[in-house]
Amino acid sequence: MPTLCRPAIAVPDHVITREQTLDLARERHAGHPQLGLVLRLIANTGVRTRHLVRPIEETLTHPGFETRNLRYEAEAKERVPDVVRRALAYAGTEPDEIDLIVYVSCTGFMMPSLTAWMINTMGFRPETRQLPISQLGCAAGGAAVNRAHDFCTAYPASNVLIVSCEFCSLLYQPTDLGVGSLLSNGLFGDALSAAVVRGSGGTGLRLERNGSHLVPDTEAWISYAVRETGFHFQLDKRVPGTMSMLAPALRELIGRHGWEVPSLDFLIVHAGGPRILDDLCHYLELDENLFRFSRATLTERGNIASSVVFDSLDRFFAAGGAPQDACGLLAGFGPGITAEMALGRWAGVPPSGVPHPAVGEAAVSEAAVSEAAAPG
Amino acid sequence: MPTLCRPAIAVPDHVITREQTLDLARERHAGHPQLGLVLRLIANTGVRTRHLVRPIEETLTHPGFETRNLRYEAEAKERVPDVVRRALAYAGTEPDEIDLIVYVSCTGFMMPSLTAWMINTMGFRPETRQLPISQLGCAAGGAAVNRAHDFCTAYPASNVLIVSCEFCSLLYQPTDLGVGSLLSNGLFGDALSAAVVRGSGGTGLRLERNGSHLVPDTEAWISYAVRETGFHFQLDKRVPGTMSMLAPALRELIGRHGWEVPSLDFLIVHAGGPRILDDLCHYLELDENLFRFSRATLTERGNIASSVVFDSLDRFFAAGGAPQDACGLLAGFGPGITAEMALGRWAGVPPSGVPHPAVGEAAVSEAAVSEAAAPG
Repeated sequence: MPTLCRPAIAVPDHVITREQTLDLARERHAGHPQLGLVLRLIANTGVRTRHLVRPIEETLTHPGFETRNLRYEAEAKERVPDVVRRALAYAGTEPDEIDLIVYVSCTGFMMPSLTAWMINTMGFRPETRQLPISQLGCAAGGAAVNRAHDFCTAYPASNVLIVSCEFCSLLYQPTDLGVGSLLSNGLFGDALSAAVVRGSGGTGLRLERNGSHLVPDTEAWISYAVRETGFHFQLDKRVPGTMSMLAPALRELIGRHGWEVPSLDFLIVHAGGPRILDDLCHYLELDENLFRFSRATLTERGNIASSVVFDSLDRFFAAGGAPQDACGLLAGFGPGITAEMALGRWAGVPPSGVPHPAVGEAAVSEAAVSEAAAPG
Repeated sequence: MPTLCRPAIAVPDHVITREQTLDLARERHAGHPQLGLVLRLIANTGVRTRHLVRPIEETLTHPGFETRNLRYEAEAKERVPDVVRRALAYAGTEPDEIDLIVYVSCTGFMMPSLTAWMINTMGFRPETRQLPISQLGCAAGGAAVNRAHDFCTAYPASNVLIVSCEFCSLLYQPTDLGVGSLLSNGLFGDALSAAVVRGSGGTGLRLERNGSHLVPDTEAWISYAVRETGFHFQLDKRVPGTMSMLAPALRELIGRHGWEVPSLDFLIVHAGGPRILDDLCHYLELDENLFRFSRATLTERGNIASSVVFDSLDRFFAAGGAPQDACGLLAGFGPGITAEMALGRWAGVPPSGVPHPAVGEAAVSEAAVSEAAAPG
């Protein structure tokens, strides 16, 4: 059965704190009629630190769409190989054992996709299939896992490499002054991640079922306006309330799998903002402690788009995972409004019964959780 | 076994002939130092007519990236539903029987993708999975077939809808004056297509194996420059010679499947330009008549990007297809340089043995071929 192995994560060196973000908002939008609201919203995100690919002074300039996109490409080429190599190592796979690369990123656009460059420079076979996805936004992390799951179900001897590369700071638009834009400026962060889904063997999340759900008539709630200045992220104020509509879809998928929500042992969900996590607790009637990995990602890295689920999953791994066969849910949420959901069981030991060196700890250790929640 | 059913095709009403294209090139580039070469290249494409979403006068203006992209969205919403409904009818499927929509398009960018709008407006279930692909260019037609094949292999009871929407004329860049750009201005056309891959049942191309191949170190040969003015298509002069490198990959896949090239009964390939077809004949040592469907697409519609393979396949269906179980190849070629290849057998009658009404003719009739090659 396909297994999502431990993800590798990377964040760039430049860090911006909540206080710096708030100071910047006060300074740059001193006369904004809704500044008070914006500051409250940013303060309430729960985001403490975010990482940026470029220093903040440079991030705040807009050098033009072309330059921005070239920067995306340069930064991706600089940073992707490391997370990929680490993800391959976690999975015990070599580049030439990878049959499909799913590359998800909504913060830069390249054709050919970075997958071609990766194949040319990193030892992947020319036969490696390429699946670049740029239009699923924050849901793309879940979608990547699910399409990898499908592929390995079709070809059980195959392995899929997922790469998520999100430099949200390169989408900063200084002329967008709506409350949603100013909030987004204080919410999103940069990160990269990679993970292997093995068709057989491996330890991690054994994928059993996946599903998708589109909330009807919410297309305009999260969107890009495509302009001469690049992609403009547009966030409707109704988005934070989306979980009232998505929680039933999660519940429905869990039920279809013969499980019940209360029996979930772990959840790895897209932490787009604090209310998503609060509301999921509420609507699914689950303990907020189950969302601690996702919340730690939001707190320490902000909304890192399609990388959130991988960063949270990495924290779960670092904390020792769960008892063998424990039931879990992984879900990405993004434009559409779309949820990409996966159900699986924790497989801390490989099918052969030999413990995997990377995941020796089968029970969740609180000390390890705290450690995983510290800045990485 | 997954079956690619008959595609539905649509082309817009505005038509530009080769003569009009050549006149335009003479008029707009009168002083161009390589005008003679450009005219010869355009004349040699073999393209006789192309269809455009907007009148030629409007096509030749550049109203800005934002306006262009909004036009893409409006034209797509206007035109996609019809091809989708026809493709569903060909396959004998209803919208609520579709489990995955693969939407391929490299000529406009939307987030959320048009898949969300389709689900909201056309009767697809909210659970329908969305797979928008924008970065595989002309190879995306083959990639869509192959990912649909994978999905139906994983879930044999499922059905996948493929939509290809290519408005290449909306990428016209009046300031791009290189020979490759001027040639492209005379080569590409607009079209839409849709097709269903049924996990079981259906008539058409029974998909048996797929594969991908990236020609090493050719990333820069077909690419987009992303600028304030939108996507700029960049075509290297080495591209027409690519088949010397891709033919061995086609041969290798065919061999791995236990087939031999001479036993291929039909080929549906991306007709990016005339030399692709000529060279494939040459390197695979096949009769040029086998490429007549692809050549008809090129002649009558130009290079319609990811829609070429569907337009050619539609012509093959219209011509009566092939004898039951005849062996065929479908292949898209695009940036990377990437080939996305599929091998399958003709299934003119469904597995139950009941002839499908849409494909009564099992043998290729030359009269039908000629008819199919007439402008649609």
